[in-house]
Amino acid sequence: MFKSYNADDKLHEECGVIGIYDSDGEDVADKLCYGLLALQHRGQESAGIAVSNGDKVDYHKDMGLVTEVFNKEIVNKLKGNIGIGHVRYSTTGDSHVYNAQPLVVKYRNGSISLAHNGNLVNANTVREMLEDEGVVFQTSTDSEVVANLMARYHKNGIEKSIKKVMGLLKGAYALTIMTDNKLIAVRDPHGLRPLCVGKTKSGYAVASESCALDTIGAELIRDVKPGEILVIDENGLNSVPNDKWCRKSLCVFELIYFARPDSLMGETDIYKSRREAGKILAREYPVDADVVISVPDSGTAAAIGYAEESGIPYTEGLIKNRYIGRTFIQPTQQLREQGVKLKLNVVHENIRGKRVILVDDSIVRGTTSRRIVDMLKNAGAKEVHVRVSSPPVKYSCYFGIDTPNRQKLIAANYTVEEITEQIHADSLGYISIEGLIRSTGKDEELQRSGFCMACFNGDYPMEVPKQSDDDN
Amino acid sequence: MFKSYNADDKLHEECGVIGIYDSDGEDVADKLCYGLLALQHRGQESAGIAVSNGDKVDYHKDMGLVTEVFNKEIVNKLKGNIGIGHVRYSTTGDSHVYNAQPLVVKYRNGSISLAHNGNLVNANTVREMLEDEGVVFQTSTDSEVVANLMARYHKNGIEKSIKKVMGLLKGAYALTIMTDNKLIAVRDPHGLRPLCVGKTKSGYAVASESCALDTIGAELIRDVKPGEILVIDENGLNSVPNDKWCRKSLCVFELIYFARPDSLMGETDIYKSRREAGKILAREYPVDADVVISVPDSGTAAAIGYAEESGIPYTEGLIKNRYIGRTFIQPTQQLREQGVKLKLNVVHENIRGKRVILVDDSIVRGTTSRRIVDMLKNAGAKEVHVRVSSPPVKYSCYFGIDTPNRQKLIAANYTVEEITEQIHADSLGYISIEGLIRSTGKDEELQRSGFCMACFNGDYPMEVPKQSDDDN
Amino acid sequence: MFKSYNADDKLHEECGVIGIYDSDGEDVADKLCYGLLALQHRGQESAGIAVSNGDKVDYHKDMGLVTEVFNKEIVNKLKGNIGIGHVRYSTTGDSHVYNAQPLVVKYRNGSISLAHNGNLVNANTVREMLEDEGVVFQTSTDSEVVANLMARYHKNGIEKSIKKVMGLLKGAYALTIMTDNKLIAVRDPHGLRPLCVGKTKSGYAVASESCALDTIGAELIRDVKPGEILVIDENGLNSVPNDKWCRKSLCVFELIYFARPDSLMGETDIYKSRREAGKILAREYPVDADVVISVPDSGTAAAIGYAEESGIPYTEGLIKNRYIGRTFIQPTQQLREQGVKLKLNVVHENIRGKRVILVDDSIVRGTTSRRIVDMLKNAGAKEVHVRVSSPPVKYSCYFGIDTPNRQKLIAANYTVEEITEQIHADSLGYISIEGLIRSTGKDEELQRSGFCMACFNGDYPMEVPKQSDDDN
Amino acid sequence: MFKSYNADDKLHEECGVIGIYDSDGEDVADKLCYGLLALQHRGQESAGIAVSNGDKVDYHKDMGLVTEVFNKEIVNKLKGNIGIGHVRYSTTGDSHVYNAQPLVVKYRNGSISLAHNGNLVNANTVREMLEDEGVVFQTSTDSEVVANLMARYHKNGIEKSIKKVMGLLKGAYALTIMTDNKLIAVRDPHGLRPLCVGKTKSGYAVASESCALDTIGAELIRDVKPGEILVIDENGLNSVPNDKWCRKSLCVFELIYFARPDSLMGETDIYKSRREAGKILAREYPVDADVVISVPDSGTAAAIGYAEESGIPYTEGLIKNRYIGRTFIQPTQQLREQGVKLKLNVVHENIRGKRVILVDDSIVRGTTSRRIVDMLKNAGAKEVHVRVSSPPVKYSCYFGIDTPNRQKLIAANYTVEEITEQIHADSLGYISIEGLIRSTGKDEELQRSGFCMACFNGDYPMEVPKQSDDDN
Repeated sequence: MFKSYNADDKLHEECGVIGIYDSDGEDVADKLCYGLLALQHRGQESAGIAVSNGDKVDYHKDMGLVTEVFNKEIVNKLKGNIGIGHVRYSTTGDSHVYNAQPLVVKYRNGSISLAHNGNLVNANTVREMLEDEGVVFQTSTDSEVVANLMARYHKNGIEKSIKKVMGLLKGAYALTIMTDNKLIAVRDPHGLRPLCVGKTKSGYAVASESCALDTIGAELIRDVKPGEILVIDENGLNSVPNDKWCRKSLCVFELIYFARPDSLMGETDIYKSRREAGKILAREYPVDADVVISVPDSGTAAAIGYAEESGIPYTEGLIKNRYIGRTFIQPTQQLREQGVKLKLNVVHENIRGKRVILVDDSIVRGTTSRRIVDMLKNAGAKEVHVRVSSPPVKYSCYFGIDTPNRQKLIAANYTVEEITEQIHADSLGYISIEGLIRSTGKDEELQRSGFCMACFNGDYPMEVPKQSDDDN
Repeated sequence: MFKSYNADDKLHEECGVIGIYDSDGEDVADKLCYGLLALQHRGQESAGIAVSNGDKVDYHKDMGLVTEVFNKEIVNKLKGNIGIGHVRYSTTGDSHVYNAQPLVVKYRNGSISLAHNGNLVNANTVREMLEDEGVVFQTSTDSEVVANLMARYHKNGIEKSIKKVMGLLKGAYALTIMTDNKLIAVRDPHGLRPLCVGKTKSGYAVASESCALDTIGAELIRDVKPGEILVIDENGLNSVPNDKWCRKSLCVFELIYFARPDSLMGETDIYKSRREAGKILAREYPVDADVVISVPDSGTAAAIGYAEESGIPYTEGLIKNRYIGRTFIQPTQQLREQGVKLKLNVVHENIRGKRVILVDDSIVRGTTSRRIVDMLKNAGAKEVHVRVSSPPVKYSCYFGIDTPNRQKLIAANYTVEEITEQIHADSLGYISIEGLIRSTGKDEELQRSGFCMACFNGDYPMEVPKQSDDDN
Repeated sequence: MFKSYNADDKLHEECGVIGIYDSDGEDVADKLCYGLLALQHRGQESAGIAVSNGDKVDYHKDMGLVTEVFNKEIVNKLKGNIGIGHVRYSTTGDSHVYNAQPLVVKYRNGSISLAHNGNLVNANTVREMLEDEGVVFQTSTDSEVVANLMARYHKNGIEKSIKKVMGLLKGAYALTIMTDNKLIAVRDPHGLRPLCVGKTKSGYAVASESCALDTIGAELIRDVKPGEILVIDENGLNSVPNDKWCRKSLCVFELIYFARPDSLMGETDIYKSRREAGKILAREYPVDADVVISVPDSGTAAAIGYAEESGIPYTEGLIKNRYIGRTFIQPTQQLREQGVKLKLNVVHENIRGKRVILVDDSIVRGTTSRRIVDMLKNAGAKEVHVRVSSPPVKYSCYFGIDTPNRQKLIAANYTVEEITEQIHADSLGYISIEGLIRSTGKDEELQRSGFCMACFNGDYPMEVPKQSDDDN
Repeated sequence: MFKSYNADDKLHEECGVIGIYDSDGEDVADKLCYGLLALQHRGQESAGIAVSNGDKVDYHKDMGLVTEVFNKEIVNKLKGNIGIGHVRYSTTGDSHVYNAQPLVVKYRNGSISLAHNGNLVNANTVREMLEDEGVVFQTSTDSEVVANLMARYHKNGIEKSIKKVMGLLKGAYALTIMTDNKLIAVRDPHGLRPLCVGKTKSGYAVASESCALDTIGAELIRDVKPGEILVIDENGLNSVPNDKWCRKSLCVFELIYFARPDSLMGETDIYKSRREAGKILAREYPVDADVVISVPDSGTAAAIGYAEESGIPYTEGLIKNRYIGRTFIQPTQQLREQGVKLKLNVVHENIRGKRVILVDDSIVRGTTSRRIVDMLKNAGAKEVHVRVSSPPVKYSCYFGIDTPNRQKLIAANYTVEEITEQIHADSLGYISIEGLIRSTGKDEELQRSGFCMACFNGDYPMEVPKQSDDDN
């Protein structure tokens, strides 16, 4: 009867990270909290903060939303002018408090605290190598693998140690690392996961998305570059650049869905590119209709773009209940058949007797799409034309996104015509890959677009596990 | 450091009510829960449910959101095929668990449970009359006054008792009442607070708004009429009509702001009238600009209407953090000065260098408006033109809305020019009262519009306390 | 799997009350808390405190132990120099937070708060009389009946009002009552429930037992007399004596079991009379044995007395686990058969090969006695002689004690010989009624002993319901 | 205002451990819970359980009492027929949930779970050695050091690995270790901390004290021998004996105070030796008096012995409030001066006008002793003669007991005469070391008694840190 908040038909980001260094010595736990609130959409399972005052590290983390895990009393106890924070989404298997982050360890030279967004594809290999040497693990997180590697190389000093560790790791990672007196930000050489740095009144902050910087009153400086190590300490901000080269491959779903629309990523403005995608979609799949509506909230920017381009008015056709929360008593199948529906309701006036264009950002399994189309038709929509601002998702992700196995990806198994029928739509149009690239303001071939689009075309930026057809 | 969720610059509804009668004998507690979730926007302080199985009444109520007060275990314990529910917003003074509703009492003929939305203007007079006769009170709610009056007249049977009670009460009330085997809905003769009735698969449901009926799969039949008593029991649905006449006066702010946009009230479609108000506003206060944005979420329908009428494109300029929750650690003044802001963030791309029309549904104190205008200007807006889809709020409400005293109502004390300056806007336009009436699809004079607009013009539908200028 | 803390084979007191008046104006909530802690043995289901600062009443009450219901923050919010408190044990039927006390009501002349220990035998009659007049009830407590009666007579002033109320009530009651500026203590004319008054540094305190006065540093003055009304206010302590006469009848089980051994009740020293009962028991039922042990903790004083009189050494034979708490995961029947036992364990050295005299204060159903005798025999006891420091319990109580119905009272249904066999003892001796009277230091006939012994002999001090043999 | 439960004037044990292996495959989490309840006196800060079903390890641990950390739902989720449990007391410094045990780690060959009672004197040395090699630590527990060492030697198989680890460790340890399919119990070569093994219906159990075996229905087989490794798996119970020799040195305070009186340790019956110590004390320090009382609960056995030997009657002079719990709102200094006292109250009847012999098990700082003597004198005691059933505590412990530094040990700084005066007693007598040895039923010289008595005489069984006079 209880279901997770995330048990919907969307892809899910697995984490958000933040770090703050205050050179005036002021405590940063409250700002970390506010920053995590702004990143909460990236993970709702657990939240945590670790701080250092140069002398002593303290931390607090638990299952739950930021507002559930932290309160005034807890925040006030976390004393320190350096700190990192983490919000986590997780796959069911490892949903346990011991996997909450940041991970805090003691090693030869003091403490290391880590918060990680991404996924290492060779985590198990490295783990086994370490286990052969007698290392023990207390979690199933990549962070613990990274921390152990860092401690291995402790004699070299922290920057060199991280450099060496990066030489061993394969996969996606955006890391905030705290030592007793440094804040360090690291991004994998492909730049698969986002990470940016900003200036606060009296120091620096790094975060997965710029909206977290906005929230704490920091000014965005730039993205952490793929492969870069940024070290913030009493000497200010220093960069250890990547001395190798590789193709930049930011996860395209950051653009399409994960990132908050008010964030900027590199040269890309999230909101603008989503609206632009809507415009391109309108050109690629025009249809005669009365209204354009979105699946709130993530489809709205594209829907507005579609409306603008097509001249068909945008309106709100679905209202989302804001109070359902992370977990609540879900209606039984019987109740659902009686019409009980918690999350979305139709604005009848805007739908009844209308030909509706419904803009969504993606279709994963197709189950939610069908439910929404049915709901609109029951409310009197004459036609429902579904437009999707991302291409068909056909391949699993290995870089930190919780994709179902390929059997459940509707576009991996059915043609667009079949999907149209399955979701009960009158027509269906997915934006093309080229259109999506153009929506970012670029006009380049896929290889040089700077995005990882493997979930659409299987072109992974590095070797990944072979996908059998029957794995789960 | 902790502030209430409602400490913003909006008017607040004081309650939402629901009732379900299942003639097949199925438990209704889960559906009541879902219905309350759909009414949660009407009150976030406390939530409660009372059920009867014809034999025994049980109830649960506490401070908090529906999702905080109820869980599977609690809902499963509430056995009964008749039930009522309540969500409450409250003024600080009586924010105490003992004021949570429904109120459940035993009297001569069994049990009475009540859930009330509204405000009695003669509650104190009736209360004193009862106290003179030795009655004791355990809460400061109107419900307890009503329950005591009903018990007084117990010899007449429940319908006649309610009839008599209505003869004594003055003010606004939408009541759901449960006896051991009946569900009763009552609406005051002016119809100040909304109440509607619908058909479920195996019974009936009443609720403050039709969106709650939609959520539980019930079909809207009609509004409960002003002054009507609806009795639902083993004999089905029966109406005891109002045998007196008075002017219908639904609170106009239900239309403007309180009701969910997907609700219908009488012949008025909430969404449509809000969008229409936006169109009228565009005609009344046109301005040359680049984009129309709204203060999310309640200003959006009017903004879309404004955009449609003016031809200036609608877009999203402000993103609301959905995770802040009812109470959380609020930034100190110092942090706010450093730019920390939790609730809203600007979509820079849509604002920078633009002339912006900002549509809001109302201005109460003006403090939030100024903060938002400043935020937009800091983000690079060239001009900010504020358009408000309700007329200036100049008078306090006595019928269940938490208006500040007149000293704090900015429009009661300043001219539109002065307000424009105070909120740092480049121009400011309020919809006219006539425009607002027309937005509901009517074209009648105020007296016959069917709405109470006393907060705009002081024309109260019944006598109210004299407003001194220095009361608080 | 979860059982209530009180689901053992003992009689249970239904409440403890306290009241403090501080004439220096200091807050009393913390002291009330400490006093309730000292009375916690009288009721573990709910706890509550109400305070008045002469102007405003506030209260907090909830299900749970004092340490669970109150914390520093809650106590600090309860501002007032007058206050009353309550701990409650309850029969399953009315175990609900709405029955927690104190009850706080508003009436014509201000507020009344009540905390009640006892049971009214005519509560239903009075309740019905009030309901006929239109009164509603929100709880099933006697306190609400009393509060309503008091409000009825409000015109007479509080003391006269209470006097009149006492003329209507039948049964057992020890009440602490708080008005806006008075603390009042009332005890029923039979004095069935204990109540005493003491002097604090700057005021007065009343409590069910003197141990609560000791705990808060107050000095015991005397018992509140049967039928007396004690009024404490700015004029100090004033007594409204009982102007009628009736037989004094303190519940004898206060002496035997309920009261803490360090309390004094009237001229009776609890510890001394329990030890004396042990001595008398030794004379009435001597037996040759090696050790005297008690069922901890309540049988210990009598066991020490038995040992002293018999010359057989007292020792500890059973160790009680102090950490089990109010509710915890109880072993299943299967686990119990495997020998899992949480509450008591045997000190083998003191039992093995020994002839044991086991002193308990009472036998109600007999189930626990058998379990303990078996445990001792399994531990190698050669003989177990059970001695009980109260006479056989044969009749139900109507004055505030939770006795099972007569079918379940082992002594109402079986002879001593049969009970001996049923509990697997080698011999069994109950103290005689005369012996019990003598243990209090008196040497009088039953009628004039000053104790209610109806549970032993059916001689109730007032009319009670007729006991059918099949009621539950 | 909040103080820890343990902030009294007693020495504190730092842990209790338990382990159960069920060869019929039944879940053991509930029994582990009951066993921990029986060991709760050894540690009240945190509690935890880890279980294995041969395939998968799961665990739950948190701050709080067993009854607070576990409930039915949590216990039911812990599936496994092998399990270990832990309760912890801790010094303030490392009171953090991450130090709660059992510690569960993954290593090359599967999982290792550990629960530890004791203290390693060379933990830091080993830790540093491991850190040099790049090991990271997430807790400050000895268990993590042991787990890392075990993982180092994984190639040898678990028994040999433990053997090797024991060769490195110095200090006190009683360990329960769980691998995926084995339960292992290990005791340090000196046997400083207790550990015993018993037979259940369908397997084996190990525990710090035999009272835990009694509670779960297991039959005590014997103590785990100093230096022994006991392995329990599908092959039953197998011993890897210690192949070296050293002096047996069970902590004497287990005997005097820590162990529950119903436990057996090796050939020593705890209750008997405490009572015997009381008898010897009566011979060593006789005094003419009226009553013998104890400081409840731990002084009672000795008090009963003193009474028996002296012929002066034993009685209860102090009543302990059982409901105060681990933390609660402590009286302020001001309230304490007004006589507010939560924990103990005097049974006046047994004290007033009497010459009292007060038997306590130990005096650490002397502050509590003075408070109790004062309380007795205020209650009218004519004389108070303090008798202590342990010799003066003069040296710190390094083996798992939380002794204050020597400056605070009253007997390390003052003569018996001075202490007598400081605690306001009329006379004071400590049992002699020889007397204490004899109380165990032995008549041997200290060296061969089998107990560590270093806290009395500084004769540590192994090298310990040099004690400066000003360390804290």
